[in-house]
Amino acid sequence: MLDRSGVDDLGRVFHALADPTRRAIVEQLTRGPAAVKALAEPRAMSLQAVLDHLKVLEGAGVIATEKVGRVRSCRLMPAVLRGAEQWLTGQRTESERQLDRLGDYLEGK
Amino acid sequence: MLDRSGVDDLGRVFHALADPTRRAIVEQLTRGPAAVKALAEPRAMSLQAVLDHLKVLEGAGVIATEKVGRVRSCRLMPAVLRGAEQWLTGQRTESERQLDRLGDYLEGK
Repeated sequence: MLDRSGVDDLGRVFHALADPTRRAIVEQLTRGPAAVKALAEPRAMSLQAVLDHLKVLEGAGVIATEKVGRVRSCRLMPAVLRGAEQWLTGQRTESERQLDRLGDYLEGK
Repeated sequence: MLDRSGVDDLGRVFHALADPTRRAIVEQLTRGPAAVKALAEPRAMSLQAVLDHLKVLEGAGVIATEKVGRVRSCRLMPAVLRGAEQWLTGQRTESERQLDRLGDYLEGK
């Protein structure tokens, strides 16, 4: 699905992962859910900047957030990462298949 | 390596793949190298717009271009796609490993 800016679901995931801070947050969340505070603490940036990054990750479906009492907790959505991974695997393997065919052709197989 | 805008190598790859037109060009190039003209023809956009997309893909190392006579040819660089794929696989598998551990814990294993 394209939104008004022409960005689709997969595009939103790749856009979210284009930023090194957002990828570091994803890496941190692979170890389990974390409170916003725990994600902000190790980073030399304002809480607002971290919240902005989390908003991009949540908008892309890469993370989900949940507020319990006064604590907002974030967790990774591995299925969304798997979707992006599968697209890349598809392109890479198709490309390698073509290279193999070219190799066979050049070797006269 | 970070450039002045704080974007790193992997960030450039994900940024390049965030756009649906650029992903469609990548998909087309999995079938083998193609001239710029062959990449522009199926697309309802100006040649300049296609050239701009190719420049982003080339800047990220996703494609390489080569000029032979008057024809500029583009080809995919699967190793760069593999790098992005491996980062995603690393996050996804680590995340699933943590979920498995949680499952074992909850099942009293």
